[in-house]
Amino acid sequence: MDLFRQPLRPVNVGLESFYDSMVSQGVEAVAVDWRPPLDDYVELNHTTDGIDIDEANAEAVRRICNGRPVLVGMGIAGEVIPGFYPSGPARILITHSGPPIGWERMCGPTRGAVIGALIYEGLAETPDDAAGLAASGEVEFAPCHHYGAVGPMAGIISPSMPVFIVRNDATGHVAYATQNEGLGRVLRYGAFGPEVIRRLKWMEQTLYPALRAALDVGGPVDLRSMIAQALHMGDECHNRNKAGTSLFLRAIAPALVEATRKRDTAAAVLRFIDGNDHFFLNLSMAAMKAMLLPAEKIPGCTVVTVMARNGTDWGIRVSATGDRWYTAPAPYVQGLWLPGYAASDANPDIGDSAITETGGLGGFALAGAPAIVKFVGGTPVDALNATLEMYEITAGEHTAFSIPALDFRGTPVGVDVRKVIRTGILPRLNTGIAHRDPGVGMVGAGLVQAPAGCFQAAFEGLKALW
Amino acid sequence: MDLFRQPLRPVNVGLESFYDSMVSQGVEAVAVDWRPPLDDYVELNHTTDGIDIDEANAEAVRRICNGRPVLVGMGIAGEVIPGFYPSGPARILITHSGPPIGWERMCGPTRGAVIGALIYEGLAETPDDAAGLAASGEVEFAPCHHYGAVGPMAGIISPSMPVFIVRNDATGHVAYATQNEGLGRVLRYGAFGPEVIRRLKWMEQTLYPALRAALDVGGPVDLRSMIAQALHMGDECHNRNKAGTSLFLRAIAPALVEATRKRDTAAAVLRFIDGNDHFFLNLSMAAMKAMLLPAEKIPGCTVVTVMARNGTDWGIRVSATGDRWYTAPAPYVQGLWLPGYAASDANPDIGDSAITETGGLGGFALAGAPAIVKFVGGTPVDALNATLEMYEITAGEHTAFSIPALDFRGTPVGVDVRKVIRTGILPRLNTGIAHRDPGVGMVGAGLVQAPAGCFQAAFEGLKALW
Repeated sequence: MDLFRQPLRPVNVGLESFYDSMVSQGVEAVAVDWRPPLDDYVELNHTTDGIDIDEANAEAVRRICNGRPVLVGMGIAGEVIPGFYPSGPARILITHSGPPIGWERMCGPTRGAVIGALIYEGLAETPDDAAGLAASGEVEFAPCHHYGAVGPMAGIISPSMPVFIVRNDATGHVAYATQNEGLGRVLRYGAFGPEVIRRLKWMEQTLYPALRAALDVGGPVDLRSMIAQALHMGDECHNRNKAGTSLFLRAIAPALVEATRKRDTAAAVLRFIDGNDHFFLNLSMAAMKAMLLPAEKIPGCTVVTVMARNGTDWGIRVSATGDRWYTAPAPYVQGLWLPGYAASDANPDIGDSAITETGGLGGFALAGAPAIVKFVGGTPVDALNATLEMYEITAGEHTAFSIPALDFRGTPVGVDVRKVIRTGILPRLNTGIAHRDPGVGMVGAGLVQAPAGCFQAAFEGLKALW
Repeated sequence: MDLFRQPLRPVNVGLESFYDSMVSQGVEAVAVDWRPPLDDYVELNHTTDGIDIDEANAEAVRRICNGRPVLVGMGIAGEVIPGFYPSGPARILITHSGPPIGWERMCGPTRGAVIGALIYEGLAETPDDAAGLAASGEVEFAPCHHYGAVGPMAGIISPSMPVFIVRNDATGHVAYATQNEGLGRVLRYGAFGPEVIRRLKWMEQTLYPALRAALDVGGPVDLRSMIAQALHMGDECHNRNKAGTSLFLRAIAPALVEATRKRDTAAAVLRFIDGNDHFFLNLSMAAMKAMLLPAEKIPGCTVVTVMARNGTDWGIRVSATGDRWYTAPAPYVQGLWLPGYAASDANPDIGDSAITETGGLGGFALAGAPAIVKFVGGTPVDALNATLEMYEITAGEHTAFSIPALDFRGTPVGVDVRKVIRTGILPRLNTGIAHRDPGVGMVGAGLVQAPAGCFQAAFEGLKALW
């Protein structure tokens, strides 16, 4: 009855300028935020063999939410990641972020990080030597995701690098990630100078043994609980990890002290972690990967299990289509720039860190991290709206990760390719920005939308199955 | 012009039931949230000698906001707090929270904590002995606030207790607070069993020397910056100190490790702090006291410089009237109860921790701490509204402490007695709840409004000056 008592008002669907011109003339109008579906949308409800897609997607969300990622240990990549060696005649395997790519199409920061990794591995002495080796065919490149691993930005993992081992205790799935180096001139942003290599060696020879020993003494670290707490402390666990880093340091510090014979070493490790508010990012990423692995390859499931970028291509994988990548050119990021840098310095979007959004964190949890706008731009209201919009394209709401400001509503989780195509709403990410040239490093941080092309390609791929 | 184009609508001022009945009959009405002033309100704008009160209040807010509280060291209360000894013939001075009170009127938890302190000091062996001594006149009682100190809940400080020394580097004012014991059966909630005394001894003989040595090695800790960060991490620095505790542990851990010869001791200290998410509370309180001290005794200033409760009386001090206390009976707290306890177990509101609200934190910063409702009750929207309401009765907005969710608006700071009387809006606090009987401990946590009586009494006191 309330509806019929209201005065008549025009309703404008879509383009806001029509609405604006009515309002400017004193007309009380209603604006409906609507976009046409991306091209070639059709309803997909059941597979030809009768699988209910909504049910398959609900199962994916259940598996993701029920994941129990635990940091169980650490090891050297080449020793602990199954199959981490060249499959062909190459001398070495190096994994990178995003979908598959060869040296010739790699972006500047990925090339820079490969150069740094080859120097770090002792296979080259100069950047030129390293670039020559990388181009020679003697280095095999593969996505981290092909090995259950994830790497932020360039995402380079080479065999000598220490990795966190994160096990999903609900399913047994295991994921891996390197230790976070900090911001600025670091390998993952494409820098490869002597200070970068020195830091990587220190991380291998001092940080890693101390953390591994602390885990041996203190036992596994429950990352699911830590992420849930960090989300209540202003982190979104992608570009804001101040709380996660603090909670991790708190959790590890007593055992670290007990396990480390030299006080100076323990103090140096604590100072390194304390000095890097992004230290927890790689743990958050590995935890998300471990939670998403059980959602892969569910028949009929249109939920995205991987979103990842190599700085040239943006790629996604969808549960029902398994290992197949759907790619599109990586877009540029709208961001805030470090002093001395501008948009013209930026490489396109890069990194496996979009695994956080894939699992319901990062841009999807922005409403819980209003302070992040100081790092990536925008306003706290934008942050709130980003999360609210993501509920339009996700298959469920997280049962472990919630946002106090939304009355403890679960974060949007499980991007449904169908919903992206139907609504035209694209996943929102927040991310760091690397310099386009090898050897420079970080230039900023910002916000970006996934390119429509990946989802259009995936939707075509899904339609072919039906 | 927009105003005159609107249809005519009734405006209801005050009692909401009139508004509700119009709406239920389909009338589009406007409700104005308004309360009559508390009794005997008059406009106070200038003192008889021509001081502009708004300017005096702005000066108070400036001094508060410009404070730079720094943890500069630690010491034993009787050795480092100036004048911390009995002024009369008594054998010992014990300070308590809130306005002045003698043994005969002390509430259960304060009596319990006094009993515990006398056992801890070795002046009594049994609770009965201690109670007899406390009643004998051989113990002098005084408010912590009379010594620049603050104590949560019962707030007991006895001469052997270690205290943090917090200096306001902008002015040189110094404030003190004990180390936080944790939750549950602890002295400040009125418990005095052997485990309470053992913990206090450990805190004196192990925790304190280790932290003091860490401060000597690592240097002062900037509490202003730490509080500002914690407010962006979901703390309000009164009943939620998870981020502050994490940041403090991060800051102190490396130097603690370097300064502590025995690894087991360093690990035990880190475990104790990690095990108590409220460890930072006492630092937050001392920081607030150090920031508020320079706002005391400004001629013509109607800003509240102390809000404190002893569990029997609620008291405030106002800048212009200096050391004078204005008191009213302490109200009961609306809260959440620990298992096995109910409202009938609760003591009235108690503790110096209202210094956080006095300085613009706690209930005044609740909008930045939506997750706190799990601890103190209510909803995240209530938390938001609590902060918004406090802007109605404060003289300014904090320039150092801000709330991301309110687009980084400064927290409301500097309660203006005039505004409280004019609007009838009372300061909102969140707080722990002690059992009414000595020897029990914590029974819950919740939300409470300051009693009007303190502000009415203060307003009368101010009027007498004009």
